[in-house]
Amino acid sequence: MHKFIFDSQAAHAWLDDHARAQLAPKLSAIHQDLLAKRCPGNDFLGWLDLPQTEQTLLDAVNAAAARIRQQAEILIAVGIGGSHLGGQAGLEMVRGNHYNDLTSETPKIIFAGHDLSLTTWQDIATMLQGHDWALNVIYKSGTTLEPALAFGFFQKLLRQQYGDNEANRRIYATTDSNRGLLHDQALANHWTRFVIPDDVGGRYSALTPVGLLPWAVAGLNLEEVFAGSRAATNDLQENSFANPAWQYAATRFLLLQQGKNVECLATYEPRLELLGRWWQQLFGESEGKTNHCIFPTCLNYTQDLHSLGQYLQQGQKFLFETTLWVEVIDADQNIALDDQAQTAMPHLRDRSIHFVQEQAMRATVTAHSQDNVPNLIFRLGQADEWHLGYTMYFFEFACALSALLLNVNPFDQPGVQAYKDELTRLLKS
Amino acid sequence: MHKFIFDSQAAHAWLDDHARAQLAPKLSAIHQDLLAKRCPGNDFLGWLDLPQTEQTLLDAVNAAAARIRQQAEILIAVGIGGSHLGGQAGLEMVRGNHYNDLTSETPKIIFAGHDLSLTTWQDIATMLQGHDWALNVIYKSGTTLEPALAFGFFQKLLRQQYGDNEANRRIYATTDSNRGLLHDQALANHWTRFVIPDDVGGRYSALTPVGLLPWAVAGLNLEEVFAGSRAATNDLQENSFANPAWQYAATRFLLLQQGKNVECLATYEPRLELLGRWWQQLFGESEGKTNHCIFPTCLNYTQDLHSLGQYLQQGQKFLFETTLWVEVIDADQNIALDDQAQTAMPHLRDRSIHFVQEQAMRATVTAHSQDNVPNLIFRLGQADEWHLGYTMYFFEFACALSALLLNVNPFDQPGVQAYKDELTRLLKS
Repeated sequence: MHKFIFDSQAAHAWLDDHARAQLAPKLSAIHQDLLAKRCPGNDFLGWLDLPQTEQTLLDAVNAAAARIRQQAEILIAVGIGGSHLGGQAGLEMVRGNHYNDLTSETPKIIFAGHDLSLTTWQDIATMLQGHDWALNVIYKSGTTLEPALAFGFFQKLLRQQYGDNEANRRIYATTDSNRGLLHDQALANHWTRFVIPDDVGGRYSALTPVGLLPWAVAGLNLEEVFAGSRAATNDLQENSFANPAWQYAATRFLLLQQGKNVECLATYEPRLELLGRWWQQLFGESEGKTNHCIFPTCLNYTQDLHSLGQYLQQGQKFLFETTLWVEVIDADQNIALDDQAQTAMPHLRDRSIHFVQEQAMRATVTAHSQDNVPNLIFRLGQADEWHLGYTMYFFEFACALSALLLNVNPFDQPGVQAYKDELTRLLKS
Repeated sequence: MHKFIFDSQAAHAWLDDHARAQLAPKLSAIHQDLLAKRCPGNDFLGWLDLPQTEQTLLDAVNAAAARIRQQAEILIAVGIGGSHLGGQAGLEMVRGNHYNDLTSETPKIIFAGHDLSLTTWQDIATMLQGHDWALNVIYKSGTTLEPALAFGFFQKLLRQQYGDNEANRRIYATTDSNRGLLHDQALANHWTRFVIPDDVGGRYSALTPVGLLPWAVAGLNLEEVFAGSRAATNDLQENSFANPAWQYAATRFLLLQQGKNVECLATYEPRLELLGRWWQQLFGESEGKTNHCIFPTCLNYTQDLHSLGQYLQQGQKFLFETTLWVEVIDADQNIALDDQAQTAMPHLRDRSIHFVQEQAMRATVTAHSQDNVPNLIFRLGQADEWHLGYTMYFFEFACALSALLLNVNPFDQPGVQAYKDELTRLLKS
């Protein structure tokens, strides 16, 4: 069931005819500039064309993935930020967040190098003992500190276990096409190489080999991912408020004007938590360049209803909620309760668990909306490859529109430099 | 190395002599009312006395834990909110977030029932196949929807695997002392029972059997946990600004007055992520009862420097950051880089990984502070049982002071009812 719907009824209270008329000219200009690649940051618009990725690249990724499946019981994927979140988010959305505990036919995939935690790397090293494994190192420059150090740590282990020649056959580098340390290392050591295109920034790179290789190793159907992203491309051509990305971007913009400074992305399945984190980076890093922009955060329901639900209901009224609802996750099943529990909760008799989950979502939307926490709702058909491709492309496009509405370049991240410069200064002193 | 320090120098810019003089009378009154149990919500102050928990209770918990270790390779701990976060947070802080992948002498512990995700429960059921396991069900009433349904699901599995008699020997109920569905079920089926005291609310219950039983199963030294919490009790008696809980509560209060509406708890080790989530519930649910209160969120560094770093640096200036820094996690180790990487990054030569991590923390504090994101810093000696007990008690006490400064009852959660009522209405309709 292919379905990705922005529930415009939920947004209608803010996005009324008056607001649409006001915002349409600006959105139309932004939309056309984006598609014609004339907008700010237009040297980083390669992601617009990723849905048309050539079959030869997918074949090469699938071939490398097949080799990794033969070589390894575990794949270590080293990357941080945009070189990490999209890959893990897509894997977990489709295969579930217990993938590593349950997989038998495809390798476990452990994402590493997104921290400077030696104890974590050592724990992973212990988990590798007695197993065959391979290493996918993912970053453009090769000098980003976290993946550089983690890659050094795991590369050394790999060489100790297999010797140089075999180790080199087990390293897969996803990096710049023709420069940078990692590119040079890959060339010198004959590692299998995949390219992060020059005109695709980290947080927009999930549909490049950054995400594709781990997904293919786990057996995801890349053709379906791209079918989904192409369907989104198609739907998002529309230069009017019939375009759901216009509706989402405009509603966020209007909510911000009304003091709704924090957007909470609410998901109801643990397998979607990482997709939330991917969305958080996408919007936070694209828009966080002005004193008037939304702070994005993630809520994992129903868990967080029992921790932040109180705040949402009666705390500071500067929040709104965007629900990512997946209609069908799996075969449903009726509630099992012992006799005492049945008697205490008679209204649960003959209910299915998914039915209860859906009522929990409806109850949350109602209860929060009534206490002035506006709710926007996305409805996805399933958590499969097609919806992964669609969802990522949709949010990338909507994020570009939304940041351009704020008059910021959606594709740079100049502020990150301050921390990097200070760190380099400390390390050199 | 026992150490828990609030870096008052970092806070000094806000908490100057003038502010101290202004806030001292109110804080002193709050402090005395709290310790004398005269404050709002004083029917839920049992947590103040938990550090003096009697040895007989610890002995009973340790004995049950020893039985579980004999019976089971896996313990399923069913609970949500305050009946979940503290337990998992403490386990991961002390044993690491890869505990389940690495443990051999003590059972794996899987926390479940904090969602309505059937696919997650089914995944866990698959992970149980071929293993011996036991069930710890944790909640006061017995009718909270998520744990009730998850408990029903797992109880049925347990009875299928072991038959009724043996299943009953493998269920451990942590619940109300003398009423509620779960209490009644436990009594009828002769399950081992532990009590959540009447005067301890969920988010303040980690140091009751709610957290203690899973910790003991994993081999945590409960005596050390309580030694830490008693040390905190002692340090927090101080009725003046020499009390670090006063400093933290007052600084938060002053930052909120200046428009710093969002507090980001930053941790640098994956094993502390869940402690962040526990802190988030503690403060969000205690304070989220007025239109003028801080929204608490968690950042996992250095990962989130590469996703939200841009926002912190140049986005809306309504954030401040509270860093939870642990000085010693493990044996340190020098950086391993291949020759090409050594040449490209000569300033990393002979550096240790922990040294680099510490510079990353220092660089972050400096870079964010300079861009008007104030930074508060807690320094913990280690991530062991003593510091777990100290840290939890410290934040519970500081949170009570902080909420009372806002004139709200820190110990109730009236807003959560709206969602529960709406859900019950939907399920009964």
